[in-house]
Amino acid sequence: MAHITLNNPLPGITGLLENRPDTGQPIRELTQILLRGESSLSELNRELIATLVSYRNECHYCSSAHAAIVIALGGTQELLDKVFTELPNAPVSDKMKALLAIAGKVQQIGKAVTEEDIRNAKGFGASDIEIHDTVLIAALFCLYNRYVDGLGTYQPEDPVYYEKLAQRLVTVGYMRPREPIVKTGEATFK
Amino acid sequence: MAHITLNNPLPGITGLLENRPDTGQPIRELTQILLRGESSLSELNRELIATLVSYRNECHYCSSAHAAIVIALGGTQELLDKVFTELPNAPVSDKMKALLAIAGKVQQIGKAVTEEDIRNAKGFGASDIEIHDTVLIAALFCLYNRYVDGLGTYQPEDPVYYEKLAQRLVTVGYMRPREPIVKTGEATFK
Repeated sequence: MAHITLNNPLPGITGLLENRPDTGQPIRELTQILLRGESSLSELNRELIATLVSYRNECHYCSSAHAAIVIALGGTQELLDKVFTELPNAPVSDKMKALLAIAGKVQQIGKAVTEEDIRNAKGFGASDIEIHDTVLIAALFCLYNRYVDGLGTYQPEDPVYYEKLAQRLVTVGYMRPREPIVKTGEATFK
Repeated sequence: MAHITLNNPLPGITGLLENRPDTGQPIRELTQILLRGESSLSELNRELIATLVSYRNECHYCSSAHAAIVIALGGTQELLDKVFTELPNAPVSDKMKALLAIAGKVQQIGKAVTEEDIRNAKGFGASDIEIHDTVLIAALFCLYNRYVDGLGTYQPEDPVYYEKLAQRLVTVGYMRPREPIVKTGEATFK
């Protein structure tokens, strides 16, 4: 049960975006641009940033959802575990290690990011726009995690829920689906 | 100097929103709806939430800008100081104290908000939508503060800059101004 009464039974962020579509729409648009728009960072790598920040913010819903997306995009649980707890040994490029380290700093507080962090990322070939998007994706998930947990939304435990949600977000993206979102008699998610 | 090269000389968030207008637009829209849209919370009270979160996140640019807006809307420095450091004695309603306390929890981490925090706010008359908007405004400024500081943007020290910016945001709002934003030979802000 969420802390407030929603107009729908959907869990996590899906219930919040549907409850207030006027604020939901720009949040969806920003996410679609950052995570699915044109970028020299792969969708997998952008989702890794989202997942790491959500994990560090202890948001069960967001970290489960985006971890499932990472796996749906070809990542593995081992990759996720290393990124979460042992970044220097994670099976990602040196550039991604540097960008994930910046995302981890942003999760704490913006001013934790140092010029050395930026020099390190640039030294491994990170472009200005890649650094920009890393910071903004990390900042966006600091919004999402607080929105989802701050309102005490219902967050399923069943991994199958997140796998189905991930399939949808991988194939359809983050904009509001056209079909009715609340379906009677089956798992409700969007 | 920001950590990345921007396409304009504007400080703080203004330079970032102008540098990448595609992501800037939904951020502006969300802010306009939450801080200037129809609400039973006054603009002053909504700006107080934004200012408290920015202060706690140690974001000089955002806390200076939104403090100046609070003052432009009729607030005082004493009000701000009390909200920052002595909330129980701040000259605001009991409902606003409860909502500001929730915003302060959201600034830390979403799951810090307890059912008791919510019961307390509801006991003082806070509605579901007021609680929703408090949480989402607080979450949005956790995004802003990290975006502005995580990219090391230039942040003026001169209070006059923030007073002029506040005048603009009070009278025009948060959407992109129609007139050219970068003017030669005068203070650049939007």
